[in-house]
Amino acid sequence: LLILTVSQGASIASAQGGEHNKQVVLEFYDLAMNQHRPQAAANQFIGSVYTQHNPLIADGKKAFADFLEARIAQFPELHSEIKSIFSDGNRVILHVRSKTDQNDRGRAIVDIFRLEDGKIVEHWDVIQPIPEKSANPNGMF
Amino acid sequence: LLILTVSQGASIASAQGGEHNKQVVLEFYDLAMNQHRPQAAANQFIGSVYTQHNPLIADGKKAFADFLEARIAQFPELHSEIKSIFSDGNRVILHVRSKTDQNDRGRAIVDIFRLEDGKIVEHWDVIQPIPEKSANPNGMF
Repeated sequence: LLILTVSQGASIASAQGGEHNKQVVLEFYDLAMNQHRPQAAANQFIGSVYTQHNPLIADGKKAFADFLEARIAQFPELHSEIKSIFSDGNRVILHVRSKTDQNDRGRAIVDIFRLEDGKIVEHWDVIQPIPEKSANPNGMF
Repeated sequence: LLILTVSQGASIASAQGGEHNKQVVLEFYDLAMNQHRPQAAANQFIGSVYTQHNPLIADGKKAFADFLEARIAQFPELHSEIKSIFSDGNRVILHVRSKTDQNDRGRAIVDIFRLEDGKIVEHWDVIQPIPEKSANPNGMF
């Protein structure tokens, strides 16, 4: 045990913080995307500064909540299924299938969140419609 | 130091494996995407089984190399800039801006790789063209 170094100690702290951050993001995502309560989710989980990289949404928790409210109004059956969750340092990464309704083939999404002190403070995503046909039998997830 | 548990020991091993896996993926990506040697990259870094989730590419290292060779022939200035790299367990995640030439606004990509014994054995991605305009001043990265 004496061979442990400061760097390895940092990895332990990071791994523990990562598990907590994953839990924060999972609760945020479920409340906003599937319980359809984006205002409550933003108030509970997003920090006072929220830097947005999705090109359709302005900075800040209110812009996020307003955007998602409008999308839920347009697609009342909007639903996200989280396929994988990863964390590294203060980032949490989700691999998600989002569907507007049961008949929608859906979109593949990766969301990247940066957290500070248990709050979500920055967000990036990449979104691709799932095509009808594929060159392999594996699906996008 | 005696308070360390088996679970924390696993986190240390995972963090160390994660750093090695990141290095493998960075070398693979540079050789294939920027040095434009996909056959060499596939032979050196991809496992004997390679499960592909990009819907345009069949399973296996040869299908990957052939696909990228054709794309490089079409876009001789094809270039990828890795903006972020993450790892969790046996996965490595890249956040990338890919451009076909210097005038291309480019595409935002997240690649997810699964590694076994230092070889890349599975790949998922999500790809989105970068739009001209954005509701925020931050860019997609």
